[in-house]
Amino acid sequence: MTPQPLQPAAVARLIDHTLLRADALPAEIEKLCREALHYSFAAVCVNSVYVPLVARLLRGSSPAVCSVAGFPLGAMLAEAKLREAELALAAGACEIDMVIHVGALKAGEDAAVAADIRGIAGVCRSAGALCKVILETALLTDEEKRRACLLARDAGAAFVKTSTGFGPGGATPADVRLLRETVGPAMGVKASGGVRSLDDLLQMVAAGATRIGASAGVKIVEEARTRYAAAGGPR
Amino acid sequence: MTPQPLQPAAVARLIDHTLLRADALPAEIEKLCREALHYSFAAVCVNSVYVPLVARLLRGSSPAVCSVAGFPLGAMLAEAKLREAELALAAGACEIDMVIHVGALKAGEDAAVAADIRGIAGVCRSAGALCKVILETALLTDEEKRRACLLARDAGAAFVKTSTGFGPGGATPADVRLLRETVGPAMGVKASGGVRSLDDLLQMVAAGATRIGASAGVKIVEEARTRYAAAGGPR
Repeated sequence: MTPQPLQPAAVARLIDHTLLRADALPAEIEKLCREALHYSFAAVCVNSVYVPLVARLLRGSSPAVCSVAGFPLGAMLAEAKLREAELALAAGACEIDMVIHVGALKAGEDAAVAADIRGIAGVCRSAGALCKVILETALLTDEEKRRACLLARDAGAAFVKTSTGFGPGGATPADVRLLRETVGPAMGVKASGGVRSLDDLLQMVAAGATRIGASAGVKIVEEARTRYAAAGGPR
Repeated sequence: MTPQPLQPAAVARLIDHTLLRADALPAEIEKLCREALHYSFAAVCVNSVYVPLVARLLRGSSPAVCSVAGFPLGAMLAEAKLREAELALAAGACEIDMVIHVGALKAGEDAAVAADIRGIAGVCRSAGALCKVILETALLTDEEKRRACLLARDAGAAFVKTSTGFGPGGATPADVRLLRETVGPAMGVKASGGVRSLDDLLQMVAAGATRIGASAGVKIVEEARTRYAAAGGPR
C-alpha cells in the first residue's frame, strides 16, 4: 500500500516562510506575508528590521512572527544579541531564531555559549515566545553538534535549528537525525538551508524535523497539492 | 623613471587586519592581534564579541580596535544596531564599521537610512571614534551607491566602505573611484572584499581608497617588503 501523501495544509503548517536577504525590499516582505496568510504557513521569518511591518500585516492571524538575532554570524556581543531579541519581541515577534557563537563552542567555552542561549531563551519565555537555537551545523563536527544541542536544551530553548542559509552548507537528513537523537522527542528540530522541494521537506521530516525554514514555501506547498490531488485526495 | 614602490610601513598603515568568519577562534583573534602589533596595521577588525579581547591585547599600541555593527546583512532593527555599536565602543572599540539597510535604500526610504547612520555616527563622535559606513556595493546600482555616499557624508560618517566580504562581490577599482568622486577628498574611502595581493591594494589606492580591509594583510606587506628591497630601498 502506498502511503497517503501529507495533506498540503499539514505541509504548510511545517514551514517558516523565510526572506532574509540583505537587499529584501519592503514590498517583498509584504508579499511574503500575503503568501503566509494564504497558505497558513507556521511563521514568517525575517530580519529584525522588518518585524514591525510583519507584525502589523499578520496581526490576528495564525502565522507567527519570527525574527532572527545575531544573524547570520552569531559573533556579536552577547548583550547586543540579547538586546536585538528583546527589541524584536517588543516589536511583535513571537519566535526568535538566534545564532550561537560558533567560535566559543569550538574553543570549549561552553559556559559562554550556554549563557548566551539562556539569556535569549529567558526573555522569550517571559514574552510567551519560542527560542530557536541555530547551530550552523556545516561548520561543526558531530561532537560539537551534540554538545551545542545539549547546551540549547539545558538553557531552555524550544528548538534547535541546523543552519542560517548563509553558511557553507544547509540542512542534511543526517544532521537532522543527529539533532533529533540528541535532544530527544520533547524539543523542536528546525531544518533550514537548501530545502527547496517537497521531497527535501519530506526527507527532513522523516529524519525528525518538526519545522522547516525555506524561501521556497509556495513552490513546496503547490507540489504537495499536485501530489495530493494525483493520489486522489480532495484538493 | 620607475616610481619608487610604496614603503612597506606605509602599506601596513593602510590595512584593517580583518577576521570576521563565524567560526573564528579566540586563538586566531590573538594571532591577528600579534600580527597587527608586529606590522603596525591601521586596525584590527573583528565581530563585536571579540572587542573586549582585542582591546585588551592592543591596549596602548597603535593599531585601532575596529568592530562591526549590523554585520553583514545590515537588516537589524536600527535601535539594535545602535546598541551593538554602543556596547562595542564601551568595550574598547574606536572604529565602527556599520552596514546600511540596503532594502530601505533601494526602496527610497532615505530618511530611515540616514537616521540609522546618524545614530551610530553620533555615538562614535561622542566616543572619539570613527564611523565607517558599509554600502555593500555589489548589491547596488551606481545611482544607489551615490545616494548612499551622500547620505553617509551628510549623516557625519568618517568613511564610506565598499563591502562586507560576505556579499555577492567585493571592492572594485571602478566602485572605489565612484565613491571617492561622490564624497570628495575630505572623507575616507575603505575598499574591502577580495583585496588579496599588493597589486589589488595598489589598484584600490590609485582609485582613491585611503583604507583597505583585508584578511591577507601579512601576505600583502611581505610582498611590499620584497618589492621594496628589489627596488633598492632599505628593508
